[in-house]
Amino acid sequence: MALNPQYEDIGKGFVQQYYGIFDDPANRANVVNFYSATESFMTFEGHQIQGAPKILEKVQSLTFQKITRVITTVDSQPTFDGGVLINVLGRLQCDDDPPHAFSQVFVLKANAGTYFVAHDIFRLNIHNSA
Amino acid sequence: MALNPQYEDIGKGFVQQYYGIFDDPANRANVVNFYSATESFMTFEGHQIQGAPKILEKVQSLTFQKITRVITTVDSQPTFDGGVLINVLGRLQCDDDPPHAFSQVFVLKANAGTYFVAHDIFRLNIHNSA
Repeated sequence: MALNPQYEDIGKGFVQQYYGIFDDPANRANVVNFYSATESFMTFEGHQIQGAPKILEKVQSLTFQKITRVITTVDSQPTFDGGVLINVLGRLQCDDDPPHAFSQVFVLKANAGTYFVAHDIFRLNIHNSA
Repeated sequence: MALNPQYEDIGKGFVQQYYGIFDDPANRANVVNFYSATESFMTFEGHQIQGAPKILEKVQSLTFQKITRVITTVDSQPTFDGGVLINVLGRLQCDDDPPHAFSQVFVLKANAGTYFVAHDIFRLNIHNSA
């Protein structure tokens, strides 16, 4: 498989779609559909899990309802297996907590004409925002 | 190729080695040896380039000398082609500039018993640190 020249649009489109679902408390659990049952890795604030069932468990364990999110930058690169590497930086506020900078890295892998999230690394940059 | 169980040590070791070279002005240009002549992608503050010669040009165009760097977190994940995805967050100060939070994503790809940087995305999170 070759580089996908649409990587920029794919990255931006994915980010919009993913956070549209994640940030809606009624819809949040549906982000599990972006992940593979066995292959996807998620590292959430340093805690690593693998596979959609555990990722769903993690997402459902989050206690906040409302997320107010501002995306600062989305940097995408094509990978040589037809996927897309995405780095998102922004700020988010959960319910009435103070806003925090966040960083999230995704690797989208192509599979049968669509993409799944093979890698997901999330961090609140609270130690860096002082 | 399978998952490399040493991904955590490889990620941490790489980060230490990479910044050890990058942060030393006399040695900085040698980071070019981590990249492939044709395949490596670098996105530096939103500007994307490809291949070691252009990456060297970019590194040599940086005007600061001294970098004082503090690594806050290094999150690594193994990739199914035997490589390692690394997300680094930290703070850096160039010469006498004010310190900034930074984010850098690397994808290391295995090749003949060693690794090269296939993907590199760097951002100063200056918009997020207010």
